[in-house]
Amino acid sequence: MKLGRISLPGPDGPEARLVLVLPQEGRAIDLATAERQRLERRGAAPEAARRLARALFPGSMAAAIALGDEFLEGAARAAAAEGGDASLPLEGLRWLPAIDPPLMRDCLAFEEHMRNASARLGREVPPVFYQIPIYYKGNPLSLIGHEWEVPWPGYTQAMDYELELGFVVGRAGRDLTPEEARGLIFGVTIFNDFSARDIQGQEMGGNLGPAKGKDFATAVGPWIVTADELDLLSLEMVARVNGQEWSRGSSGTIMWRPEELLAYISWGETLQPGELVGSGTVGRGCGLELGRFLNPGDVVELEVAGIGVLRNRLGQPQPVRWRPSPRQPAA
Amino acid sequence: MKLGRISLPGPDGPEARLVLVLPQEGRAIDLATAERQRLERRGAAPEAARRLARALFPGSMAAAIALGDEFLEGAARAAAAEGGDASLPLEGLRWLPAIDPPLMRDCLAFEEHMRNASARLGREVPPVFYQIPIYYKGNPLSLIGHEWEVPWPGYTQAMDYELELGFVVGRAGRDLTPEEARGLIFGVTIFNDFSARDIQGQEMGGNLGPAKGKDFATAVGPWIVTADELDLLSLEMVARVNGQEWSRGSSGTIMWRPEELLAYISWGETLQPGELVGSGTVGRGCGLELGRFLNPGDVVELEVAGIGVLRNRLGQPQPVRWRPSPRQPAA
Repeated sequence: MKLGRISLPGPDGPEARLVLVLPQEGRAIDLATAERQRLERRGAAPEAARRLARALFPGSMAAAIALGDEFLEGAARAAAAEGGDASLPLEGLRWLPAIDPPLMRDCLAFEEHMRNASARLGREVPPVFYQIPIYYKGNPLSLIGHEWEVPWPGYTQAMDYELELGFVVGRAGRDLTPEEARGLIFGVTIFNDFSARDIQGQEMGGNLGPAKGKDFATAVGPWIVTADELDLLSLEMVARVNGQEWSRGSSGTIMWRPEELLAYISWGETLQPGELVGSGTVGRGCGLELGRFLNPGDVVELEVAGIGVLRNRLGQPQPVRWRPSPRQPAA
Repeated sequence: MKLGRISLPGPDGPEARLVLVLPQEGRAIDLATAERQRLERRGAAPEAARRLARALFPGSMAAAIALGDEFLEGAARAAAAEGGDASLPLEGLRWLPAIDPPLMRDCLAFEEHMRNASARLGREVPPVFYQIPIYYKGNPLSLIGHEWEVPWPGYTQAMDYELELGFVVGRAGRDLTPEEARGLIFGVTIFNDFSARDIQGQEMGGNLGPAKGKDFATAVGPWIVTADELDLLSLEMVARVNGQEWSRGSSGTIMWRPEELLAYISWGETLQPGELVGSGTVGRGCGLELGRFLNPGDVVELEVAGIGVLRNRLGQPQPVRWRPSPRQPAA
């Protein structure tokens, strides 16, 4: 199944809705509407049907995933039963980030990216990269969806994209083996880890990882494809800027497999349903590796076979209102 | 006001409740109960009173803070009106993490800590520390409360504490000046950033910041003190291990002031109500600076004047079920 989130107008303002996406048919099914109608056909009063339908299909994808099997079975059932009113043409839909994760990590699992990026920065690949699957934690509150404009913070002149997969966690788990972790993968989406390379380089010298270099925007979507529909290790990945191909790679070149990433993350921590884990950039999957960066107004499309296309236009640089004043070391 | 979260048994299992804490009186007021009773006295039917009281005082502190002035005014009103049934003796309460933040950052704002820690590790203080207020993002899903046992992941033999303040964000804001950011501080709590120094050192070599070294547990509590009650720059801070004083410092030695931290964080990102921002460790506020670490069973108490004492006992090391197998660099 392909599952996404859209925004619809409501009496109290825009409302997030979960949809089952049928790209071949050019339409999506509003799951809460389909379920409400199904319940009404079974004798439920309208308000009661609405209450139960919204509990099963809330606006939060993470909250829905946390319902476990009930959510996926309900989605299949609602889709099979939908009578027409729940059907929306894909054209003109306002997409929300496909997942609203309680926590977001981004790994560094492709060796070619690490080698290329290190070479560009005149550094050696750090040995730890081969010892453990390192990652940083992103800002899940600044996710953007398909077709959203990317905010361009005024502090950067080196805007970049990163061509990645995003793995969505389906169930809670802790201290897992890779075999156990494989069963936790709910699905996969496309993940564009927009990066401000100048400030990223500056702040990473402090050894606390990226912050301003990454946290202004991460694009996720257009939707999630459930894990049963894809082989995670044979996905063709392409990036285009203004229609021109910049990057091409395959998920099969990953060095730390998805289930190893999740097993490592679960070490001493409890993974929760709805968490999002970026794969890291596929080899040659960003401008840093190619020696070129983005400009305001550029359109970046990430395409992954079997998932779809995630498209975002870069906004104009925003004015800077304040900068920290440097301090002097104490004598 | 002092505001905390406790767990009470309910018909569907343990339930989180917000409380106003009166340490001098040795009691706390269950805010939803006090509000429900107040509404009933004003003629509300019991179920209606319960519904409105739980909407104003949900189990989530972040959700309550997001209500803005209505929450603080409601807490003051409910507390003033409470008739007795809502009053709980502090003794025996089960504390939850005082805040359930949607995002957690931890800064590095005290120079003495940075100098001491760098010296112990045989490094120079990185220049970026004096240029911008660097921080990492923690795991808000592994917060623990006052009196909780600290899980000890089997991967570490170098367990440490960190004596910090935690600033709680009260309102949304973006691209703020420090003057504007000052008004966003809802309150302050005690923040113990437990750290596994061995794996932290290993993973930070990868330039993505701490993960396994920090994310297994962060203690937050025992409660939040609202910003109007304290001078954030004159708080005496003490750490004791098994009753013996290890650390003593003052918040006045901070190099990046709290409002500068929040202003910097808001640069190109929207701060949200309920977010938690650690100050970083006060000078001499952790074992790394002192050349000593913790043992299983040790009791760590962090005391901050005007807030209270946050106490946690270290658990026993947990068995390791799987370790990643190192990879060989491609030829």
